Amino acid sequence: MSLTRYHWPELSLTEQQRVLLRPAISDTTALRRTVDDIIATVRSRGDAALRNYALQFDGVRLETLRVSQSEFDAAAEALSPIQRDAIEQAADNIRRFHAEQLPQPIAIDTRQGMRCERISQPLERVGLYVPAGTAPLPSAALMLSIPAAIAQCPVRVLCAPTNADGNIDPAILFAAQVGGVRDVFKAGGAQAIAAMAYGTESITKVNKIFGPGNAYVTAAKAAVADDPLGAAQDMPAGPSEVLVIADAGAQPEDVAADLLSQAEHGKDSQVLLIALADAPIDAIVSATEEQLARLPRQHIAAAALANSAIITVESIDSAIEVSNLYAPEHLILNVEAARQYLPQIRNAGSVFLGPWTPESLGDYCSGTNHVLPTYGYANTFSGLGVDQFMRHMTVQEASAHGLQQIGPVAVTLAELEGLEAHAQAVRTRLARLTT
Amino acid sequence: MSLTRYHWPELSLTEQQRVLLRPAISDTTALRRTVDDIIATVRSRGDAALRNYALQFDGVRLETLRVSQSEFDAAAEALSPIQRDAIEQAADNIRRFHAEQLPQPIAIDTRQGMRCERISQPLERVGLYVPAGTAPLPSAALMLSIPAAIAQCPVRVLCAPTNADGNIDPAILFAAQVGGVRDVFKAGGAQAIAAMAYGTESITKVNKIFGPGNAYVTAAKAAVADDPLGAAQDMPAGPSEVLVIADAGAQPEDVAADLLSQAEHGKDSQVLLIALADAPIDAIVSATEEQLARLPRQHIAAAALANSAIITVESIDSAIEVSNLYAPEHLILNVEAARQYLPQIRNAGSVFLGPWTPESLGDYCSGTNHVLPTYGYANTFSGLGVDQFMRHMTVQEASAHGLQQIGPVAVTLAELEGLEAHAQAVRTRLARLTT
Repeated sequence: MSLTRYHWPELSLTEQQRVLLRPAISDTTALRRTVDDIIATVRSRGDAALRNYALQFDGVRLETLRVSQSEFDAAAEALSPIQRDAIEQAADNIRRFHAEQLPQPIAIDTRQGMRCERISQPLERVGLYVPAGTAPLPSAALMLSIPAAIAQCPVRVLCAPTNADGNIDPAILFAAQVGGVRDVFKAGGAQAIAAMAYGTESITKVNKIFGPGNAYVTAAKAAVADDPLGAAQDMPAGPSEVLVIADAGAQPEDVAADLLSQAEHGKDSQVLLIALADAPIDAIVSATEEQLARLPRQHIAAAALANSAIITVESIDSAIEVSNLYAPEHLILNVEAARQYLPQIRNAGSVFLGPWTPESLGDYCSGTNHVLPTYGYANTFSGLGVDQFMRHMTVQEASAHGLQQIGPVAVTLAELEGLEAHAQAVRTRLARLTT
Repeated sequence: MSLTRYHWPELSLTEQQRVLLRPAISDTTALRRTVDDIIATVRSRGDAALRNYALQFDGVRLETLRVSQSEFDAAAEALSPIQRDAIEQAADNIRRFHAEQLPQPIAIDTRQGMRCERISQPLERVGLYVPAGTAPLPSAALMLSIPAAIAQCPVRVLCAPTNADGNIDPAILFAAQVGGVRDVFKAGGAQAIAAMAYGTESITKVNKIFGPGNAYVTAAKAAVADDPLGAAQDMPAGPSEVLVIADAGAQPEDVAADLLSQAEHGKDSQVLLIALADAPIDAIVSATEEQLARLPRQHIAAAALANSAIITVESIDSAIEVSNLYAPEHLILNVEAARQYLPQIRNAGSVFLGPWTPESLGDYCSGTNHVLPTYGYANTFSGLGVDQFMRHMTVQEASAHGLQQIGPVAVTLAELEGLEAHAQAVRTRLARLTT
């Protein structure tokens, strides 16, 4: 197994930058052309285009695109009570944490008679995309639908591709239902994104599209977000990644499983282990090899590990500095008294503290959202939350007295900027108050 | 004057959509090539490129790009006490309103032993762009620098073009200083955006760039935002716009000045008047013509009015429906008891209530931010606020007991998704707790 090792203090600044550089995302020009074609076809032919693509790409003949109540019922029955309970418990925790995120309205008088407010409103129509490529992802259905429900977005549409039988994975359907989404459609890939961005006979046009996906989905989300008549997107996408900081007390098999649980996501996943000098590095490497050999997605995880690295450092401060530079999507602090280092952490999507908090908890059921900024975007973007399903609108109301107070300020500034009509809009009003 | 009139109930659905359609933004392919060249040149040649462009585009020979303390001092002295006071009063109101926007940390136990938190942190390095094309905009310097200061972004860089003497407008410099920005550089256009996105010898590389600008600035912001090694941008840009709803009580000269204060921004500004049946439409049109004739920026305002329209409606509900469909950047509700309609308003950037609240107040000094979503983006984006200068990071920490509680949920979901290493990361830990 080829986890390259580097000793941070021995690297030059350029070498340090190179080690932390993500692999370039391959050129997507050709892919973008395909996606543009798909979008144009869906815009002109609507549902018929979606049916054609389902036949062409998935070999599936679909009559109705909308999932019926009887299909929802069958999905619930296809799951075991333990599986249903797990989805409901995860949903419950996600709901608790996201309910705390509802923004409070703001209303203050900045001057006497000058009322200023900020009102938060749900986006009117949102589209949720749940992929089911190498694996169906019911957890994504929860992570998208629950904040949309808490934000109270009136229209919530969810699209997911079908399996070979022409059905959406039952766990996805059950999770969507638990998350309060009833408008679920059988559509996957770029064509699903196009359908939600522009609408079809069956699928309502939405204002913003959320959720992960493959390169086609990612390109389609970017394309429709570039079009003012399309739909905004949640955040730029990139391969998933984890950075684990481990010290002497970290259990090798735990660290190995954490590294592998990132690696098994996709061949382009990024895995970094930052090991303090006394961390059991060799034991971690052995445990990783052993566990890898038993994984069903071994070929994916092995490919991801080939791009990954172990960086040894001489202090926890140095480990955190590396993490802050890298800006990981997930950061696992598997060190003693992990919480005490939290104030130093910057630029991470989600942080996992201590020996008992594997990334899997955040992926599924701790309550935090697993849709997180990756590829270094964690230094500017936040993980998904209720706020991305809402918008703020500011409001101001001046009384006659308020205008008399601050109107002259506006006039002076308008004159400074040479914007005479701006000054005039205040003067015409003030003139009536002083006569 | 060519304000076209439409009577809303007489229009077909298609005609209604056409009337509210923004003019297409002209093809920017050629412009984008120019901008890409500028970006590449700044990346390779740094400060030297900025000096060359200043000479080439503005005919200005710059020695130092950074504004010195003596230049700040000279700028303050160049303003009158009334002007300085206006900038300070505006800053004070903006500060009051934006201070309310600081996000509160969240910390809850979603289950016993399962701690979940959300921590908000300032972006580390932000770039602020203040244009000074047809007019210098000190108000933009306030609107950008104050939320950045409240968010406590450690590095705040501001770029603005110089006038023909090689100096930045004194009001912009004074406003930047009042807004707490000390790192101000003489650079404008696409080259300033490139410098902030990638850094030069003088200018620190930033993570995100904020602020308005011309087509070159807009294209450059989009280009560097597309590059993961560049810098994110605040929001997509478009021409500025206002929608005024007026009833019988609206004073014609006030409405005229409000329409014109939008129209004077740029030839591509959009102005819509939604008039209730009893509104003094003819008097508004006459007042607009009269005021237009006296405006220094008459040619700009006249061009903007040529793209604009008066839409007559039969009820306030219908007026609000039109506004919600259009999603205006600015909405002026110049009607009786305006506040009672606020709960019906959706998709506006900022709302101005009642007869005494011209848009100029929000542009300068009510306290709200004047950087707002336009071109229909108000249905998904929010105006600028402190939150865009910050990022949220989630944190979770399970105790051993917490992991025993919810670990099995994660295992069940990981199995449903076929992600065995995810399950393993929980199982290896649970194994130690049960033995």
